[in-house]
Amino acid sequence: MLRIAIIGATGIVGQQAIVSLIGHPWFKITKLAASERSAGKNYRDALKDVSGSSRWWCMEELPEEIGNMQVEDASAFDPTSVDIIFSTMDAGAAKELEPKYAKTTPVISTASAFRYESDTPILVGGVNMDHAALLAVQQKNRGWKGFVSPKPNCTISGLVVSLKPIQDAFGVKQVVMTSLQAMSGAGRTPGLSAMDMMENVVPYIPGEEPKVETEPQKILGKFTGETIQDANFGITATCTRVPVIDGHMVCAFVQTVKPCTPEDVKKVMMDYGKDFAELHLPSSPAQLIDVTDDPFRPQPRMDREKGGGMTVTVGRIRKDPILENGIKYVCLAHNTKLGAAKGALQTAEYLVKNYLKLI
Amino acid sequence: MLRIAIIGATGIVGQQAIVSLIGHPWFKITKLAASERSAGKNYRDALKDVSGSSRWWCMEELPEEIGNMQVEDASAFDPTSVDIIFSTMDAGAAKELEPKYAKTTPVISTASAFRYESDTPILVGGVNMDHAALLAVQQKNRGWKGFVSPKPNCTISGLVVSLKPIQDAFGVKQVVMTSLQAMSGAGRTPGLSAMDMMENVVPYIPGEEPKVETEPQKILGKFTGETIQDANFGITATCTRVPVIDGHMVCAFVQTVKPCTPEDVKKVMMDYGKDFAELHLPSSPAQLIDVTDDPFRPQPRMDREKGGGMTVTVGRIRKDPILENGIKYVCLAHNTKLGAAKGALQTAEYLVKNYLKLI
Amino acid sequence: MLRIAIIGATGIVGQQAIVSLIGHPWFKITKLAASERSAGKNYRDALKDVSGSSRWWCMEELPEEIGNMQVEDASAFDPTSVDIIFSTMDAGAAKELEPKYAKTTPVISTASAFRYESDTPILVGGVNMDHAALLAVQQKNRGWKGFVSPKPNCTISGLVVSLKPIQDAFGVKQVVMTSLQAMSGAGRTPGLSAMDMMENVVPYIPGEEPKVETEPQKILGKFTGETIQDANFGITATCTRVPVIDGHMVCAFVQTVKPCTPEDVKKVMMDYGKDFAELHLPSSPAQLIDVTDDPFRPQPRMDREKGGGMTVTVGRIRKDPILENGIKYVCLAHNTKLGAAKGALQTAEYLVKNYLKLI
Amino acid sequence: MLRIAIIGATGIVGQQAIVSLIGHPWFKITKLAASERSAGKNYRDALKDVSGSSRWWCMEELPEEIGNMQVEDASAFDPTSVDIIFSTMDAGAAKELEPKYAKTTPVISTASAFRYESDTPILVGGVNMDHAALLAVQQKNRGWKGFVSPKPNCTISGLVVSLKPIQDAFGVKQVVMTSLQAMSGAGRTPGLSAMDMMENVVPYIPGEEPKVETEPQKILGKFTGETIQDANFGITATCTRVPVIDGHMVCAFVQTVKPCTPEDVKKVMMDYGKDFAELHLPSSPAQLIDVTDDPFRPQPRMDREKGGGMTVTVGRIRKDPILENGIKYVCLAHNTKLGAAKGALQTAEYLVKNYLKLI
Repeated sequence: MLRIAIIGATGIVGQQAIVSLIGHPWFKITKLAASERSAGKNYRDALKDVSGSSRWWCMEELPEEIGNMQVEDASAFDPTSVDIIFSTMDAGAAKELEPKYAKTTPVISTASAFRYESDTPILVGGVNMDHAALLAVQQKNRGWKGFVSPKPNCTISGLVVSLKPIQDAFGVKQVVMTSLQAMSGAGRTPGLSAMDMMENVVPYIPGEEPKVETEPQKILGKFTGETIQDANFGITATCTRVPVIDGHMVCAFVQTVKPCTPEDVKKVMMDYGKDFAELHLPSSPAQLIDVTDDPFRPQPRMDREKGGGMTVTVGRIRKDPILENGIKYVCLAHNTKLGAAKGALQTAEYLVKNYLKLI
Repeated sequence: MLRIAIIGATGIVGQQAIVSLIGHPWFKITKLAASERSAGKNYRDALKDVSGSSRWWCMEELPEEIGNMQVEDASAFDPTSVDIIFSTMDAGAAKELEPKYAKTTPVISTASAFRYESDTPILVGGVNMDHAALLAVQQKNRGWKGFVSPKPNCTISGLVVSLKPIQDAFGVKQVVMTSLQAMSGAGRTPGLSAMDMMENVVPYIPGEEPKVETEPQKILGKFTGETIQDANFGITATCTRVPVIDGHMVCAFVQTVKPCTPEDVKKVMMDYGKDFAELHLPSSPAQLIDVTDDPFRPQPRMDREKGGGMTVTVGRIRKDPILENGIKYVCLAHNTKLGAAKGALQTAEYLVKNYLKLI
Repeated sequence: MLRIAIIGATGIVGQQAIVSLIGHPWFKITKLAASERSAGKNYRDALKDVSGSSRWWCMEELPEEIGNMQVEDASAFDPTSVDIIFSTMDAGAAKELEPKYAKTTPVISTASAFRYESDTPILVGGVNMDHAALLAVQQKNRGWKGFVSPKPNCTISGLVVSLKPIQDAFGVKQVVMTSLQAMSGAGRTPGLSAMDMMENVVPYIPGEEPKVETEPQKILGKFTGETIQDANFGITATCTRVPVIDGHMVCAFVQTVKPCTPEDVKKVMMDYGKDFAELHLPSSPAQLIDVTDDPFRPQPRMDREKGGGMTVTVGRIRKDPILENGIKYVCLAHNTKLGAAKGALQTAEYLVKNYLKLI
Repeated sequence: MLRIAIIGATGIVGQQAIVSLIGHPWFKITKLAASERSAGKNYRDALKDVSGSSRWWCMEELPEEIGNMQVEDASAFDPTSVDIIFSTMDAGAAKELEPKYAKTTPVISTASAFRYESDTPILVGGVNMDHAALLAVQQKNRGWKGFVSPKPNCTISGLVVSLKPIQDAFGVKQVVMTSLQAMSGAGRTPGLSAMDMMENVVPYIPGEEPKVETEPQKILGKFTGETIQDANFGITATCTRVPVIDGHMVCAFVQTVKPCTPEDVKKVMMDYGKDFAELHLPSSPAQLIDVTDDPFRPQPRMDREKGGGMTVTVGRIRKDPILENGIKYVCLAHNTKLGAAKGALQTAEYLVKNYLKLI
């Protein structure tokens, strides 16, 4: 079993990382770290708020042995004490601490701090595994033995999976999209206000649209041996927040380079990702994309847990009535599973087995 | 006071029509009609379901004198007994009965039955009042003394208001849009299931997208003296249902013919509709469009009641990062006020005062 | 017009106080005060958060002239500059500042700071107006020219109105109750978390049950000339939070001293408060209690606005199957209108007209 | 493996029964039956509504082999073709068909048809397993080889589990309760209206309170050898519907015969059900009652899935301030698992292993 540390363990993403690692066949959590405030406490106590109420937000019960682990101070954490570091810190702390850890140890990160570095790939399971080779460039550039491998923005996690088979078969020319995003993406302390979200929609998520409009081109780009050449298409997005717990929906209008029918798109999506599924990574689903013919689907509450929260559900694939080579569809992905800790874990599994060859 | 009949009075739109007419300075409800099932009962009793519970769904109290009115059978209704007919029947009944009424009496309709007839305008307050002249063509064609004047689909009621000043100033070339629609649009008997809508989004509304993709071009078209020449732009839409009571939001990506900045768009929207407002129709708002600079707005729950539910709120006007001459924005309109009974009433007020000159 | 100051004007209760005073026939807001942080800014700017987004949470638009008023520092506020002070500060600030204001000026308070003082009544419109005479004792005891008159806890505002006619006619022996409380009662900064409240119930509201279990006995107590002798009955409560915006519901199981039937209870409730209504105070409803026969009512969303948010709706009055002289019913009151600013305003109106005789 | 038929298989409870039997170690679904309308179709097709959309409402995917099974006509079903019948029909059909099946075959029923028969126990896992002996009386009385064993009303499923250890240790004298019930209890076709439940509470559930006020006394009663002598305490209830998907909460005020402290109650609840848990029935949880010290719990969304939806969570145990020997607490149970199909399955497991000795 490889030893894993969760850094930022008390936050909601850290908690989800813990849950996604319960009973994992390869990885064992041996260290937890967080900010100085939590350091020295056992994990269960570190989760208590001032009233003594637990801030453990996952539905799954906190495993006894994890609850009893002592939380270390992230800023003083010794990265050589584990095999893999799972960083779920916020962007500021990540920017400062991840490079220190990466000197010696592979860092899988849910933070955005390194996403836009030219020597850093944004890996998405089954989409751009060849980009992993860029990590060697990162190591060489920075003199690291480890690396930092960040996950993408949660909103586009499902979109890029749905775009990849279209890109491969027909080419992507342009994407116009509106997202209807779940509230869990805004975190928990304090997260969104109930009075704002009840029976309401908020049509703005600070900082979201620029990420959504630029990350997919890198993820779907071409690795040249030295760097990644961004894919040559534009995205324009409006990102909204809807009163849904989990599950980000994207209404996409895609123009392809070559013409294609809805049936063509369905076929390439359903066929997509077989090779990756055959790697049988513990967190990977059997089906990367599930295309539904029910026009009322996908729905967040009904479809988000498909494939253990790792399958993207696509529905309503239609020919666009006005856009040239236009296809429109709706896709849904679990933002705190595929789009966060579990998606990062899937990447970790790939890197450990197929890139680092530690398994 | 002009005498008004509400046909389809027991339905939710009929109820909203009643509420919008309480205390009206020009119109007095003198007749109520509905299906045979309700005929002969007083209105209060006609609203009771089998358990005796009232199906009066408006927040406003049912006026005593309306509750006591006897409901007539719509199919046997004498249109000459009133000055104006307000038809809130469903499309099937409207198709059959509205022509009978229109032989003698002006019919303002919330149904879609006549929207797509070439001799029938789809009037929207402040947007296309010159199209009212097409009603004379309709009368001539059909040998009617009255007419049928239908309101547009509720989803585009706000969109066309927001598009009109853009069209006038810069020309509209193309619209890509996603709607996030309130549940009240689906009616009440039984309407949407709570188990479907709670903490969820349903990405499909049967029959909605074709209407959304074709009505605006007629509404924003040019009246030639004989008919309406559709405006020359395309719309592609995805229509979704969100857990909101009232207020349809549209995320629009608009390409204009002439280039324009977000500031230009804000200016033409804020300046828009002054002439119409100066008609001082009882149901018209002082401001047809309110542009907000708060990026978190418009929100359905916070903005839908603006201007008595008749003002369209537009926010997040931005330059599109990829579309040529592209502007993106979010607009919100009250679907059961501007988009339904009260919007139809505003049209009735215009027609009565400025077209029929009865006031 | 009497000059009113709103102290604590930037908070949600202060905002609701402003809204309830728009167009008031007797009172004019001439001063606004808040904490040092807001002092010196005009009100509109004082409401802006760091991102520039407005924290005006009421559906009603902020009146232009109020938005332009300069906010003063509450701790340096000159109480002699107004005729009446409306204090909507939190309990801590109220405890410190209300006595300073009361030296010279009547203070109507929504805070709990003075509720439990033996020389201070908790006035509820139409319920215990004779307790107003205790304010003279307060003035004498403390050497004040003004006074502090606090409103009750929002949860029992509706309950005590419903209990008063029962107490008068049959005597109240014991109350067992569960409340289902709206989220607006928890305020707005930050208020409740959307992730906690969505599709959920939270069965605890810190500090609520002790207030609910003791205030009604004082409110329904007997004024002896010197103090108030608490009514002689016990209350036990469980207070829960439900995903509702406004409107606190109480499921009550009441045992009376004398036996009574549900019809008796309905009658005394419907007859109740006629004298008070005849005072025609601007914020009072025509009907203090509305008893509904529809078993599915009262419902928060449908009934909270009745009587301008000042009418208590009671339903489901039934004979209790096991409790001696037991009656059970459900009552609903608007927690941020009757239970907060507008309820306090109604008390202010009574005091100004009938106690101070200023009108 | 024992052969099981699900009768009423297309309904929501039938679907939940199917889900609870997936991968069951003792039982295999070999037959599905429903009304005539579905008969002859394969199960997947029988679930389709007129638009072709699937009415499979469970989050778990419909197993391939179940989807392919042919649905039989319940009224012509041959009960001797299976070992156990799982009846999830509505009360009307159950009253007619369950006696026919029971002539030859044990029937586990989620319907209320037989609950109030004097020769029929209402079995609740871990609470009254000795009542199973009444089934022999039923068989003798009616000349049946099989029997009908109904589950209790879903609202009291959690309550009776929480009351049993109190009754055993201290005696129960009286219960006053308010329930906050989830929407799934109202079924799906059409179930509750979204417009009624959004941001609202409905304080009435037709037919619920009489069941809640009478079933617990039978369940907690004493089996005399011939019949059950009801437990000697009264219950009074108000049942409300809240906008929650799953999980019925009960706010209980319990008076005991002997005095006890909250700590006493916690102890007997935590110790309760060890014997039953040691039977290791496949659907039984390790802990029948989990008592939480977190005052904000139990919450429906956070606690309903505990123990596979079969553990009752109790919180907020407090000494009542006014009731003699009074204890108040909040309890939560999963209404469609413990309170419906899975609870019935647990009873079936007990009967098959410990009463029928078929395993």
